[in-house]
Amino acid sequence: MTLAEYVAQQQLRIDEALRRLVPSETTTPESIHRAMRYSLFAGGKRVRPILCMAAAEAVSDSPDGIESPASTLELIHTYSLIHDDLPALDNDDLRRGVPTCHKKFGEAIAILAGDALLTLAFQVLAQLACDPECKSRLIEELAVASGTVGGMIGGQVNDLEGEGKHPTAALLEAIHRAKTGALLRASLRMGAIYAGADDEQLAALSCYGEHVGLAFQIVDDVLDVEQPSEKLGKTAGKDEKQKKITFPAVYGLERSREMAEHERLAAHVALRPFDERAERLRELADFIVQRKA
Amino acid sequence: MTLAEYVAQQQLRIDEALRRLVPSETTTPESIHRAMRYSLFAGGKRVRPILCMAAAEAVSDSPDGIESPASTLELIHTYSLIHDDLPALDNDDLRRGVPTCHKKFGEAIAILAGDALLTLAFQVLAQLACDPECKSRLIEELAVASGTVGGMIGGQVNDLEGEGKHPTAALLEAIHRAKTGALLRASLRMGAIYAGADDEQLAALSCYGEHVGLAFQIVDDVLDVEQPSEKLGKTAGKDEKQKKITFPAVYGLERSREMAEHERLAAHVALRPFDERAERLRELADFIVQRKA
Repeated sequence: MTLAEYVAQQQLRIDEALRRLVPSETTTPESIHRAMRYSLFAGGKRVRPILCMAAAEAVSDSPDGIESPASTLELIHTYSLIHDDLPALDNDDLRRGVPTCHKKFGEAIAILAGDALLTLAFQVLAQLACDPECKSRLIEELAVASGTVGGMIGGQVNDLEGEGKHPTAALLEAIHRAKTGALLRASLRMGAIYAGADDEQLAALSCYGEHVGLAFQIVDDVLDVEQPSEKLGKTAGKDEKQKKITFPAVYGLERSREMAEHERLAAHVALRPFDERAERLRELADFIVQRKA
Repeated sequence: MTLAEYVAQQQLRIDEALRRLVPSETTTPESIHRAMRYSLFAGGKRVRPILCMAAAEAVSDSPDGIESPASTLELIHTYSLIHDDLPALDNDDLRRGVPTCHKKFGEAIAILAGDALLTLAFQVLAQLACDPECKSRLIEELAVASGTVGGMIGGQVNDLEGEGKHPTAALLEAIHRAKTGALLRASLRMGAIYAGADDEQLAALSCYGEHVGLAFQIVDDVLDVEQPSEKLGKTAGKDEKQKKITFPAVYGLERSREMAEHERLAAHVALRPFDERAERLRELADFIVQRKA
């Protein structure tokens, strides 16, 4: 199976799990479930769930049911996009080529749909069939990675307050590590924990997650400068307009591309303790750096 | 100890726990932690945590550490108030006598502070020292009660979409049961579960929670009509202005007062299987119905 086929297959597994886990559009109150599903099925690439499942596969041959905990990463990611796009935050009308949640359903429902996806992520984890000790480790990982201290919300606050500030390398790193890095790292860790990784495997996959997360963000920033909106499915050039602190803003385009390549290699090094079961993770690191959208 | 002394003591325990559990105002990023603490310590009565602790005390003599899970109910309640007060929802400037979170910190930080309190509630539960099976039951209770299907968010959506509609008894009950009822019921159930209640005790406390929850909401609606803003610490008469579906709107003031009294008695009946350890719960049911603010 090629990587493209593997990714497509994993995307289907995640979509199927999300359809099962999120209340249907005919469940009362219908409007909120429509809004949740609208944003969840608006063309997301499922990067975090796919990394989570690939990490589990690197540890164990068949981590049954992994798509449920993996899906919770997409629930969290999608809630954060809905809230980030709101007029009070990034005020974005377009996401993945379609109107953002508040443009389609109004601000009130968009705020509540974000809250609901966040809440549902923890409900899904609490209702997993795995052993309770594993469950509470997964819940702790997800909550800390999504939170204010070194987690996603903390990164969003830094990002918001960093707009217009002098773009320093230290500020950039702090924003990235928290805003996107923490959840990407948690994706790997949750997959590893679910599959029963030992401490050494968990540490190696965390390390891989940090490098891949950094590579992912650098490439995202570079694409925002290089690619037209149609290709990205979102408003291109927005970072610069909003005076966001980005890798190209701090290091320039060429140096940013070199840094992404460096992170890709470091991600490979982190996987040295693993055999061919980690091959998909290796390919995914390459893909994340070489993608064009 | 009088009930007033007991309530004051439990409020102190909860305040202490919240101060310990929520990152300090000097933790980076400071703005979000300031906003979270501002709303948490803006004079909340701690009704849900107090009911949770009293339920635990009805089951067990000394449920050690109960204030941590009890506090998560206040984290959820406070997040819901912050988001409810936003311009896109109830658009309220005043809450408990002070400016609402978005009035004080801006909309972006208020949205993120709500998200952060919600996330922190699950982190706190995942990090409890109790056994993992108990933890995952608590997390499931809190997530379901806060969610879209019969839970708090579902109730908020119904409430929002019910504005201006013909106020029927069925719609009123659906809104109330979900919007405030589910979390109040969960308060009792979480206390019971933490203290190791058997099935019969859990069912009795759930039943008490439903009646007390209903009584609480009826009295809230009645006070909104009867009391001036200064006494309530929020804008009085808002329900009618926003054409909210309330108990006085459906049943009139006098019948609403009778219904609250009926629910108070039903709450007492639910507690019959319990001995004097449930005395505080009995007193709290009386207090909730007789309060003037």
